[in-house]
Amino acid sequence: MTLLSTINSPQDVKRLDPEELPALAAEIRDFLIHAVARTGGHLGPNLGAVELTLAIHRVFDSPFDRILWDTGHQSYVHKMLTGRVGAFDKLRQRGGMSGYPSQSESEHDIIENSHASTALSYADGLSRAYALRGEDRHVVAVVGDGALTGGMCWEAINNIAAGDRRVVIIVNDNGRSYAPTIGGLADHLAALRLAPEYEQVLDVVKQVLGRTPLVGAPLFDALHGIKRGIKDVVQPQGMFEDLGLKYVGPVDGHDPAAMEQALRRAKDYHRPVIVHAVTRKGFGYPAAEQDEADQFHSVGVIDPKTGKSTAAKKGQAWTSVFSDEIVRIGAERPDVVTMTAAMLQPVGLHAFAKAFPDRVFDVGIAEQHATTSAAGLAMGGLKPVVCIYATFLNRAFDQVLMDVALHRQPVTFVLDRAGVTGEDGASHNGMWDMSIMQVVPDLAIAAPRDEVTLRALLREAVAETERPNVIRFPKGSVGAEIPAIDTVGPVDVLFREPAVARHREVLLVSIGAMGTTCLEVARRVASQGIGITVVDPRWVKPVPSEIVELARDHDLVVTVEDNGRVGGVGAAIAQALRDADVDVPLRDFGIAQRFLDQGKRDEVLAEVGLAPQDLARKVVEAVARRQPALAGDPGETVPAPATEPNAVRAAKASPRQRGASE
Amino acid sequence: MTLLSTINSPQDVKRLDPEELPALAAEIRDFLIHAVARTGGHLGPNLGAVELTLAIHRVFDSPFDRILWDTGHQSYVHKMLTGRVGAFDKLRQRGGMSGYPSQSESEHDIIENSHASTALSYADGLSRAYALRGEDRHVVAVVGDGALTGGMCWEAINNIAAGDRRVVIIVNDNGRSYAPTIGGLADHLAALRLAPEYEQVLDVVKQVLGRTPLVGAPLFDALHGIKRGIKDVVQPQGMFEDLGLKYVGPVDGHDPAAMEQALRRAKDYHRPVIVHAVTRKGFGYPAAEQDEADQFHSVGVIDPKTGKSTAAKKGQAWTSVFSDEIVRIGAERPDVVTMTAAMLQPVGLHAFAKAFPDRVFDVGIAEQHATTSAAGLAMGGLKPVVCIYATFLNRAFDQVLMDVALHRQPVTFVLDRAGVTGEDGASHNGMWDMSIMQVVPDLAIAAPRDEVTLRALLREAVAETERPNVIRFPKGSVGAEIPAIDTVGPVDVLFREPAVARHREVLLVSIGAMGTTCLEVARRVASQGIGITVVDPRWVKPVPSEIVELARDHDLVVTVEDNGRVGGVGAAIAQALRDADVDVPLRDFGIAQRFLDQGKRDEVLAEVGLAPQDLARKVVEAVARRQPALAGDPGETVPAPATEPNAVRAAKASPRQRGASE
Repeated sequence: MTLLSTINSPQDVKRLDPEELPALAAEIRDFLIHAVARTGGHLGPNLGAVELTLAIHRVFDSPFDRILWDTGHQSYVHKMLTGRVGAFDKLRQRGGMSGYPSQSESEHDIIENSHASTALSYADGLSRAYALRGEDRHVVAVVGDGALTGGMCWEAINNIAAGDRRVVIIVNDNGRSYAPTIGGLADHLAALRLAPEYEQVLDVVKQVLGRTPLVGAPLFDALHGIKRGIKDVVQPQGMFEDLGLKYVGPVDGHDPAAMEQALRRAKDYHRPVIVHAVTRKGFGYPAAEQDEADQFHSVGVIDPKTGKSTAAKKGQAWTSVFSDEIVRIGAERPDVVTMTAAMLQPVGLHAFAKAFPDRVFDVGIAEQHATTSAAGLAMGGLKPVVCIYATFLNRAFDQVLMDVALHRQPVTFVLDRAGVTGEDGASHNGMWDMSIMQVVPDLAIAAPRDEVTLRALLREAVAETERPNVIRFPKGSVGAEIPAIDTVGPVDVLFREPAVARHREVLLVSIGAMGTTCLEVARRVASQGIGITVVDPRWVKPVPSEIVELARDHDLVVTVEDNGRVGGVGAAIAQALRDADVDVPLRDFGIAQRFLDQGKRDEVLAEVGLAPQDLARKVVEAVARRQPALAGDPGETVPAPATEPNAVRAAKASPRQRGASE
Repeated sequence: MTLLSTINSPQDVKRLDPEELPALAAEIRDFLIHAVARTGGHLGPNLGAVELTLAIHRVFDSPFDRILWDTGHQSYVHKMLTGRVGAFDKLRQRGGMSGYPSQSESEHDIIENSHASTALSYADGLSRAYALRGEDRHVVAVVGDGALTGGMCWEAINNIAAGDRRVVIIVNDNGRSYAPTIGGLADHLAALRLAPEYEQVLDVVKQVLGRTPLVGAPLFDALHGIKRGIKDVVQPQGMFEDLGLKYVGPVDGHDPAAMEQALRRAKDYHRPVIVHAVTRKGFGYPAAEQDEADQFHSVGVIDPKTGKSTAAKKGQAWTSVFSDEIVRIGAERPDVVTMTAAMLQPVGLHAFAKAFPDRVFDVGIAEQHATTSAAGLAMGGLKPVVCIYATFLNRAFDQVLMDVALHRQPVTFVLDRAGVTGEDGASHNGMWDMSIMQVVPDLAIAAPRDEVTLRALLREAVAETERPNVIRFPKGSVGAEIPAIDTVGPVDVLFREPAVARHREVLLVSIGAMGTTCLEVARRVASQGIGITVVDPRWVKPVPSEIVELARDHDLVVTVEDNGRVGGVGAAIAQALRDADVDVPLRDFGIAQRFLDQGKRDEVLAEVGLAPQDLARKVVEAVARRQPALAGDPGETVPAPATEPNAVRAAKASPRQRGASE
């Protein structure tokens, strides 16, 4: 009988004797390591939040009091304490438990979103609502030190501090989310040692401060009172107190009694208060603690003993190709600089940072600033390359539009994890970028299909001098090269059957990483005796005029993209055809415009109808509605009935739908 | 011979004796008042920035040193000192001088954008570039106290402070951009009086602090050292110094010698520094100084003596209709709360604030926070209505998508100044919202066409319980009511000729405020003997199925919207038709997807082809390409030649382009 097996709700946590907490914490860590080793997931952040989460659920009454995790990948312990231990078998799997809080899973969950720095804004709204409704509830927001670099946090603090509402902000300071400055740190640490009440957290602070000297972060200094004397270290929070927030801390986030005491003080204060908890990512798991670079922030399937990956080796990743090519470009062009928003390693900039340490800028979790600062870099005569996950570019839409494009600055945005990413669920899928970037005047978008085109398009992008551009590619391995068999202007022809046109039926426009899928679709369609040409425009915005001209010569245009269908490349091509009075029917395939639950990438793609056999069937059906003689089903390889209603109705209509201006 | 007439460049400003500056300042004010009275423009902010601008150009060497105005509406004096006095005749007019800095006007101009809080990010990028290139240049950013509430500023400060680059941040603190708290202010002001060196700025500070007690703003307190004792008032900037920024101030921003001395100190520091200048909006113009609410932030044509508007009275504004209706709704529903991002008056919430002071939240220039905080309010059981200019919603795209829509929160966004706004130029036009909001799953968009539909749709929006929604309307007067002559489900029919269908040729889908234009188009098209039906879907997202069904029964679908064409409502309707296998040709008219220079709204609409006669001509031409017998030109009322090439080519094609599934 373990302690953990007795915990089915926060009430059970409250019932424990304080002396039992260390044992429960150890059981939780053991469970987490073994559970996440089987499924993959965010391990390091959750190992760092065990005692903190226990203390929260002992002091506050969820769901009456509201607990907000920013970001949700630190909520695993919270999930365990709210009755979901059994669901870890299917963590981050299709139909299983989300890797983030989920309102559909539990009344204890609120923020489902993985984008950082939002929790304080929710807390502001929730607490205003409770105050206005006269409800005496606390709102507790757990925020990482990295998230505090995001502007939203400051907007929220300015509003929270203005009220006298019951908001408890717990800063989970593991010092890992951004890299501290090191100037004068040794002196200040020596000063810290003189204050005996902080000796217990000193080791942690020291570990935190001693690493990754890449980029400066004044917030870090301010948080740790480093610019001040001993007096200020004892009560270091001039900054937060200036803003009107009560400050409690720093507290050792791995000391259950200290955490609980600090939270009780904060709760009794009945006004906005910041509790500063110093924690260590990966705490209690040697493999993670010894991993200086990442501390097992997020892992795949691993051996729980060693922490080594046990998954089969995959092919070269898109990120690795970019990582390699940007270093080559950097070596040739001293004016090329790169930027990241607290994601140096994940976006593949570590090699560039090593080669050119003065030319990489990590700005914190601050996509808005990264974008506008890049405009400034370009105005100053440099060639900035901003590397970011596709989904996080949403944060900087206005800055791309107004600060970069309106000012005609040749900034290159490299969007990694574009398209369906899978396991992280709705808020990580990069399915918005090619739609919202369509709107931006004078911005160009490149979508490489393989390693060769990624390297080439990146060079074309960086060589651009007159306009901003975006280059986007997915998560995972890049796959085999897809050579062009012909070109039409800038457009690559990937497939053409029959080779000599007798009747050109389908023009299939393959966007970026959908190349392999589109070739498979084309083979299936061609096997039904339907003429089909597959082309890849490479630069998908603006739509190359050659695509319009090719469309004129076909009966049906089909577009396939790993982006939301609404306002995507297919929609842009359709508009280009309308503008040229080319009324050839077009069918646009892409990701269904809805929020997609977690699952493996291929599972999700199949779910939204982007599996090759489904696409092929739909293309053949679309042709069949125009040419009822051909109604075979390449997905099932069983011919569809000739009496299929749509085909019959189609037979009454014009047999070929061609542009009026043909 | 005036002093002003001798000033053609910053060199001329530097040549003046310090004693001449007050006289020059007076001339500049006199010129500004008379010039802006003739054209309209931003008066108050520029009257407040006269001495500050003189000091900048005396101390720094533009364009070698870079001067960044955040936002650009405070750059008029800068324009005067950089050779553009003569261009004020055509301020904010088509083909004339922009109301913001413009790189095409002057080498002294940089930021063309009107969106706030960006200057520090540009400064960070520019200064990094100069440092890397070894160029010894200063970057000077002028930021309002209101802009500091924007999260971008904090992201930027965190980065600027980490370096030792030559960035001078001038906080132009007129205390007007957001409303200060008043708790304990009297005591703190008394304390301020005891510090003799601040007596000279005391009057200004007092004026600033004594007003508009609506919302709290801790940043304001921090800026003025209000939470601290006298010692701290003398050196009040714990907050900025915690972040590693040197602080100079506060300085009387209307004392030329003091400003100049402070800037010289800042320049000689050669590292990042904040200069805190206390100024008064509208300074030196009694009409403005006496206007407590707005201090002539932005004016139309006025009598320079009295400050009274001399423009002809226009009809009721869209904003006024909203303002009235939201108060009625608020009286009926105590759960309705409203939010603004530092724009209480411009978005029409002043009446609501007066009626329900506890239920309006001004969050500062913080659209991201406003949006996510609204999600929190909704989760807390309230019905938030977020009021914002359409163009500023771009700032919160990610928050609408992830924090509101993904979480299924029924927040209503009221977008004022949607479509072409005109005089403010590219960055104020609200031409993006209906495109980027198309991408957001489960969000609905309403576009009212007149007063009646605005009132009705606002009520429908607020009554929504399951999903977020957007309601958008333009700047200016709402015009006459446009009654529906019939309905098809939720779709209003506005025009149908012939009344009894013999041949249904054109389905014209009118979006929102384009109703009047579309009726005029329909009359012109109908006068050519072409059958035309005008419908207004009211809710434009999702596309009502009735629009698809109506399209099946017509030969051509035309959409007209005051939104960018790319990814707009027309594109969405086109996609809905494709998805239903309805291949009726469609032509979508909207705002050209480019950055539009300033001009009157009608001039700009005509420039982008949205004048009724142009639209009518294009519709007739599109029909003619399908039915060559009808080729009259309703724009010019001269029939087009029957041999017009497109028409001839069209004649060879199928005479009626209908959907295959008809």
